[in-house]
Amino acid sequence: MSETAKAPTDRTRLRRYNWLAKYDRDTINAIIDASKVCQVGYVIDGEPYVTPTSHWRIGDHVYWHGSSASRMLKAQAKGIKVCFTVTHLDGIVFSRAAFNHNLQYRSVIAFGEAEMCDDETKRSALRTFTDGLAPGLWDYARPPTDQEWKASKVIRMQLDEVSAKVADGLPEEDAEDYASDRWAGHVPLTLVQGAPVADPRLDPAIAMPDFVKNFKY
Amino acid sequence: MSETAKAPTDRTRLRRYNWLAKYDRDTINAIIDASKVCQVGYVIDGEPYVTPTSHWRIGDHVYWHGSSASRMLKAQAKGIKVCFTVTHLDGIVFSRAAFNHNLQYRSVIAFGEAEMCDDETKRSALRTFTDGLAPGLWDYARPPTDQEWKASKVIRMQLDEVSAKVADGLPEEDAEDYASDRWAGHVPLTLVQGAPVADPRLDPAIAMPDFVKNFKY
Repeated sequence: MSETAKAPTDRTRLRRYNWLAKYDRDTINAIIDASKVCQVGYVIDGEPYVTPTSHWRIGDHVYWHGSSASRMLKAQAKGIKVCFTVTHLDGIVFSRAAFNHNLQYRSVIAFGEAEMCDDETKRSALRTFTDGLAPGLWDYARPPTDQEWKASKVIRMQLDEVSAKVADGLPEEDAEDYASDRWAGHVPLTLVQGAPVADPRLDPAIAMPDFVKNFKY
Repeated sequence: MSETAKAPTDRTRLRRYNWLAKYDRDTINAIIDASKVCQVGYVIDGEPYVTPTSHWRIGDHVYWHGSSASRMLKAQAKGIKVCFTVTHLDGIVFSRAAFNHNLQYRSVIAFGEAEMCDDETKRSALRTFTDGLAPGLWDYARPPTDQEWKASKVIRMQLDEVSAKVADGLPEEDAEDYASDRWAGHVPLTLVQGAPVADPRLDPAIAMPDFVKNFKY
């Protein structure tokens, strides 16, 4: 889904390094979709909490799930404000000047309100999440029992006040530094997947399904 | 530095999946040190903020830095409460039951107060950070000017109320699920570094220093 960029708000407008800022939804969605892990910030009794959790996106909403008993979900069920972030580390930058060493990264930050999904939205969203991990996974797996459905909650948040930051180059250095004999460049970092590993308890006669063989993180 | 585990507090004691919890300082330090990126949560005017930033550890403190002008550092200079988190994604788990799909990960969460470092601590900490990226980097790079020192601030936080979570196996499944003919296992994920890439503006006669050749993320 391609959408026009929204004007940044005071919170999402990058003030420093503002040339790294991206406000177009395609860039933002791609960064969100390329990760299975986000960090969700929220406030309980005036104090900050950050919970790493897995997320997924459907249109203009990001979703995460958890147990009905979790502290995070109990707090967020009340519709509190949340700050959603995703970060990919892409490289380490070696610069000529000590204070120009840097990271290459892509990140998204979104401010909004947590919304507890109703039962219908929850069921559809968890199916989308599962098939988003690997197409066909939902139909392959043992379906949730009523008890499991009951114990699981889904929170979502609208992507509205949102911005991305893409640092994929090298920092601009001073003219005198460029003229020096110091080396500069970067070391790329990539999250690489290994070969699937079967559960040691698995009956070796059970074949690996195609959605695992074809899995691409 | 090896230390005895501290008893968890109400916030750091894992209530769900508590068999994944680790409270010993060696495990916690190893997870923190294995990443160059953390997420720092804080509260401004009652609203949650999460900022991804690079961190380093010296003994019992974690440090991060930024510009004197940054919103995060301005707020944190007042000694506000912060929530520090580090997350490594290590794999995707395919389970027999739809709701047992999971992630393998190592994470740390620490609650504390931001402390603006004084000038002496800042200077020593930034040197440690730089040499922590690659040994020898501080002496190789062009030293900071007075102006650069002035524009840079360092925040630290004591690691006291802190816990780790290590999910490196497969979830326990129901007996009936183990007896099914469904495949289960995991796909490992690893952050892999590529060969160093020189700055396109670099004079090709300038040799790559050993600390870049030997760099290990």
